[in-house]
Amino acid sequence: MGYTDVDQLAINTIRLLAVDATAKANSGHPGAPMGMAPVAHVLFNKFMTFNPKNPKWVNRDRFVLSNGHGCMLQYALLHLFGYAVSLDDLKNFRQLDSITPGHPESHDTPGIEVTTGPLGQGFANAVGLAIAQAHTGALFNKPGFDLINNHTYVFFGDGCAMEGVASEAASMAGHLKLGNLICIYDDNHISIDGDTKCAFTEDVMARFESYGWHTEWVKDGDNDLEAIEAAIRRAKEVTDKPSVIKLTTTIGYGSKLQGTGGVHGNPLKADDIEGVKKRFGFDPAQSFVVPQQVYDMYNQHAAEGAAAEQKWNDLFAKYASEYKAEHADLARRLAGKLPEGWEKSLPTYKPSDPAIATRKLSEAVLEKVHSVVPELLSGSADLTGSNNTRWKNAVDFQPPEYGIGEWSGRYLRYGVREHAMAAAMNGLAAYGTVIPAGGTFLNFVSYAAGAVRLSALSRVRTIHVATHDSIGLGEDGPTHQPIETLAHFRALPNVMVWRPADGNETSAAYYSALTSQHTPSILALTRQNLPQLEESTIERALRGGYPVVEAPGAAVTIVSTGSEVSICIDAATYLKEKHGIVARVVSIPCFEVFDAQDKEYRLSVLPDGIPVLSVEALTTMGWERYSHEQFGLNRFGASGPYKKVYERFEFTPEGISKRAISTIEFYKGHSVRSPVNRAFQQIL
Amino acid sequence: MGYTDVDQLAINTIRLLAVDATAKANSGHPGAPMGMAPVAHVLFNKFMTFNPKNPKWVNRDRFVLSNGHGCMLQYALLHLFGYAVSLDDLKNFRQLDSITPGHPESHDTPGIEVTTGPLGQGFANAVGLAIAQAHTGALFNKPGFDLINNHTYVFFGDGCAMEGVASEAASMAGHLKLGNLICIYDDNHISIDGDTKCAFTEDVMARFESYGWHTEWVKDGDNDLEAIEAAIRRAKEVTDKPSVIKLTTTIGYGSKLQGTGGVHGNPLKADDIEGVKKRFGFDPAQSFVVPQQVYDMYNQHAAEGAAAEQKWNDLFAKYASEYKAEHADLARRLAGKLPEGWEKSLPTYKPSDPAIATRKLSEAVLEKVHSVVPELLSGSADLTGSNNTRWKNAVDFQPPEYGIGEWSGRYLRYGVREHAMAAAMNGLAAYGTVIPAGGTFLNFVSYAAGAVRLSALSRVRTIHVATHDSIGLGEDGPTHQPIETLAHFRALPNVMVWRPADGNETSAAYYSALTSQHTPSILALTRQNLPQLEESTIERALRGGYPVVEAPGAAVTIVSTGSEVSICIDAATYLKEKHGIVARVVSIPCFEVFDAQDKEYRLSVLPDGIPVLSVEALTTMGWERYSHEQFGLNRFGASGPYKKVYERFEFTPEGISKRAISTIEFYKGHSVRSPVNRAFQQIL
Repeated sequence: MGYTDVDQLAINTIRLLAVDATAKANSGHPGAPMGMAPVAHVLFNKFMTFNPKNPKWVNRDRFVLSNGHGCMLQYALLHLFGYAVSLDDLKNFRQLDSITPGHPESHDTPGIEVTTGPLGQGFANAVGLAIAQAHTGALFNKPGFDLINNHTYVFFGDGCAMEGVASEAASMAGHLKLGNLICIYDDNHISIDGDTKCAFTEDVMARFESYGWHTEWVKDGDNDLEAIEAAIRRAKEVTDKPSVIKLTTTIGYGSKLQGTGGVHGNPLKADDIEGVKKRFGFDPAQSFVVPQQVYDMYNQHAAEGAAAEQKWNDLFAKYASEYKAEHADLARRLAGKLPEGWEKSLPTYKPSDPAIATRKLSEAVLEKVHSVVPELLSGSADLTGSNNTRWKNAVDFQPPEYGIGEWSGRYLRYGVREHAMAAAMNGLAAYGTVIPAGGTFLNFVSYAAGAVRLSALSRVRTIHVATHDSIGLGEDGPTHQPIETLAHFRALPNVMVWRPADGNETSAAYYSALTSQHTPSILALTRQNLPQLEESTIERALRGGYPVVEAPGAAVTIVSTGSEVSICIDAATYLKEKHGIVARVVSIPCFEVFDAQDKEYRLSVLPDGIPVLSVEALTTMGWERYSHEQFGLNRFGASGPYKKVYERFEFTPEGISKRAISTIEFYKGHSVRSPVNRAFQQIL
Repeated sequence: MGYTDVDQLAINTIRLLAVDATAKANSGHPGAPMGMAPVAHVLFNKFMTFNPKNPKWVNRDRFVLSNGHGCMLQYALLHLFGYAVSLDDLKNFRQLDSITPGHPESHDTPGIEVTTGPLGQGFANAVGLAIAQAHTGALFNKPGFDLINNHTYVFFGDGCAMEGVASEAASMAGHLKLGNLICIYDDNHISIDGDTKCAFTEDVMARFESYGWHTEWVKDGDNDLEAIEAAIRRAKEVTDKPSVIKLTTTIGYGSKLQGTGGVHGNPLKADDIEGVKKRFGFDPAQSFVVPQQVYDMYNQHAAEGAAAEQKWNDLFAKYASEYKAEHADLARRLAGKLPEGWEKSLPTYKPSDPAIATRKLSEAVLEKVHSVVPELLSGSADLTGSNNTRWKNAVDFQPPEYGIGEWSGRYLRYGVREHAMAAAMNGLAAYGTVIPAGGTFLNFVSYAAGAVRLSALSRVRTIHVATHDSIGLGEDGPTHQPIETLAHFRALPNVMVWRPADGNETSAAYYSALTSQHTPSILALTRQNLPQLEESTIERALRGGYPVVEAPGAAVTIVSTGSEVSICIDAATYLKEKHGIVARVVSIPCFEVFDAQDKEYRLSVLPDGIPVLSVEALTTMGWERYSHEQFGLNRFGASGPYKKVYERFEFTPEGISKRAISTIEFYKGHSVRSPVNRAFQQIL
């Protein structure tokens, strides 16, 4: 309350920085920053606690710009509050190598919590951030030590409101009663196609109420700072529900095109810029102007944030003496370190152990590891019993009043919401105190492709437990049998795609996933049982690829993954017995890890002089990188008992042998170079 | 009204067919069929008009089982009403080569409108079916000729209700006021994880009301047939809104596990089956029993449907004389034929024509073709101006009362709802009278991956206009720049992925997309301008790949697509001028079409003896199939002006030349076989 001219000056400064930066770049979105500058000012300066000098302080309030195209708003705020974002950085908006790219990227820019732009994602990330706060607070807060009590604030627009991923996340947040989540909906009635009345006429607030949210409406979001403040204050008071504030604004406020689509995604024209600057009392001849009073005001708030962190640090030091174990645990998590020796808990297997489905072997890992890696939060999109993602004594993460879980619970019931699950996992991982793992069928990780892509781009450690990974799921049929899915995610940069063949490889996959701090993983796991391999160990599997049948004088190398490896081993026996042909067999459970090995090692696995046949019951696409010839499934599968489906498509010792023989014949008399040899390196 | 024992007998027959079929298969979902048998009976027998002897009659009522795992319900109904689904087919449920696969597949089974199972899809397909009805009715109905007036009915469960794609579709349907759409929500409180209260506590009906839907609630969906009938009747009376009926049911009604998750996805045990049969007055010793009274009752309704079709055929014949042109148009559409000579309207280009972005060239095709292909319905997910999907005088498809369009309009404003757009397009295509094209950025086709997969599996003709197809989009940066996307969809069976390099190739892409009656297409198009190639023609491009620079004695073949083709041509010139090296250049705008050419042709394009380098500013994955060495982008892109981004990643004549020289060096002294040669054929 008690807003002055300096507040208005700050707001107009933000607006004009967005105008100038988009004009200089001749690219970008001035409309949302101009419309949302007032609420951004009130929120950041009156409500949010953060220390620009340490953007990673754990108890900072989180801010997510889900309408990421409006990122000049956020970049301007970061600059004005004193984050390591300079005025030159703003002048380099959308230029190569700047820290102010076209959409906010968390690994590029201090103060950006999550990478946004693809609509709906930020909103769902924020639900993850809010879950992480509630969980971490429940674990570590003690009487007199309210260590973790931050809020998560989100801006989102009509685009996010229309996206299914945000709908799923909103339903989840309502169910979970996340009172620490406050979202501000920029109700400006404009999307790229113009007036939202052409496609979006639902009652958004009524929808959020149906999810169990508290709602507020600020009718004049352009000017009524007091109303904005009051609405946020009331939202904070509602602690048993997430809140959404509908803020009716004028997109591009100040421009002569204000309130139209013309100001959404295009820089203002020169005369318009001149007019806006005059209207706001700025010198039209100058650009990127920040009045000192504005810096002063924001610096003061930043200083308060720094002081708050100092106070928190003092409290946390005191906590060390009273709650030693908890202090050590939280400090360790914040340092990004796993507990010493945790990996000793990973189960190992002998060849004589029984055949088990890798989804069950994954469950065995979780059963063993959950107690030594307390930051691991498992969950599933309504397929708990099928994904085997829940250890026996797991407690659900639920509002305690439901009587079916606790805030400290470590198992998330995401519901049938694959996309929101993956996006929430990105937020969970970004919070900094938990490692999320979430299950669904491999085929339905595709529903979450938009979020998995951002896991990879934003370099977060998320673990996708993707069961029922091939035609081996059998009767559910082609609608559920992945064909293209592994190729898709193997083609996505910075994702570890694992398809383990047995227990040791499954343990290796988890070791890799849990220790890859800046990389998401997808673990493709079987529904059907698989035997334990003779030659597998965790260490060998951790090289990404290794021989499981080594045979001097081999005429062919057969490379494979997961459920097909043991069939390939049988094929090698079959080739020997029926045809007198010697075959090597290689398991490549993870392309990305194998690619990272030195060339000498890779050549020892896939040596020169021996033609290579790949075998995987999925598309052959991508296998050309490791093999000369490929046997796979470049068509949809079939519904039936899985052994019959395997036979139909000839993934049998006989079927593989037939193709191995063809491969040997085809390369007879030709010099064979290992596919490991390449003419040049890729740009990375 | 006036339900008798025969009605109850029919309902229990359906239930027991589901029980017996899942038990025999030892696989499948009895719970939903047992719970929804009453509403299915009332809907099919009292409301729906269809002719089982001609499942393709255009004015049939459409039924979509969005909770497709309950497909034994639908298979039982199809059998009982006399579709070409025999009792033996039910006994072969979920067996290899049966027409009763684990989830309903429209190309397998007569009477299945759309392929469902992946949750939420069927619901969104139904929105497309309803749009198609409204549009087709508006075009062809005349006074006295109410030719197209069918309803679309949907069953969906909690899983579908939680999925974002269904939320998007429901919002769209509410906006569009689709009064011809009636959805029945199986409110059984059970999902795979058990009671829905663990994850799904929103007020579903309030949410649908917020979208603008009419809602009904039947409290005893297990027994109250009169209430079910009354609710459907009231829903039909509401013609200016879609309707949803919440039907509270008991999953697995009749089983001793009824009302629990135990009956959702597992067959009933033997003693339970015995109990259910006794409870329903059936002989526990017998299986797959259909009392004759049940056949008789359903046969009578089927006969009424056949009579309705006959009446419609008579009306349509009369229509021929009064509305000759309209009759011919509709008859042609129903025959699946495009208008004679339509392809003459495709624009062609000369090398001297100006450089134009392929998204603009796509617009030019739509501008020319829309008037000769009246069944083409374009649209975009809120990126109309960027996707260039709207021809100049297009009319929007909108309820006329908004004053911004007409039911007969041919441009759909899908809103920011990529997944629902793609799923609705599947329904539009399945209706049989329209061809849907829908635009978004290529990167966001990934949001719709779940639906695109079903386009391919269900063999429908949908056209995805996917613009901004690479780092060439520039400033928007890595969040918007596809890397993995083309590899993903090229790996998906039965999709034509086109990446045209100029105007003639763009016209070819549309020719292919529009004439591929059983295959969806993705057209990857540039934001940036591209020159017209010297050697391109529609005919040459329609072979999927062809030389654009032919050069006797070439030392290397460079294969490329889209925006990189002209850079490769410049690279060939550069190689000649700077290094005296002769290079051929090949454009492969569509892998799938190229793969379908005979081997002799493919070898002429990629001849033996010359090493092949591929160049595409996307992942290299998949290019190994056509090249020995690959130049691409196996990392995320960068935000900046596009030319600078291209330079950074060396997609320049120099950068390509460097790699071409490395390729030539690498293969010097080695025998080089064309990648067209393979040791064996894939199973298709």
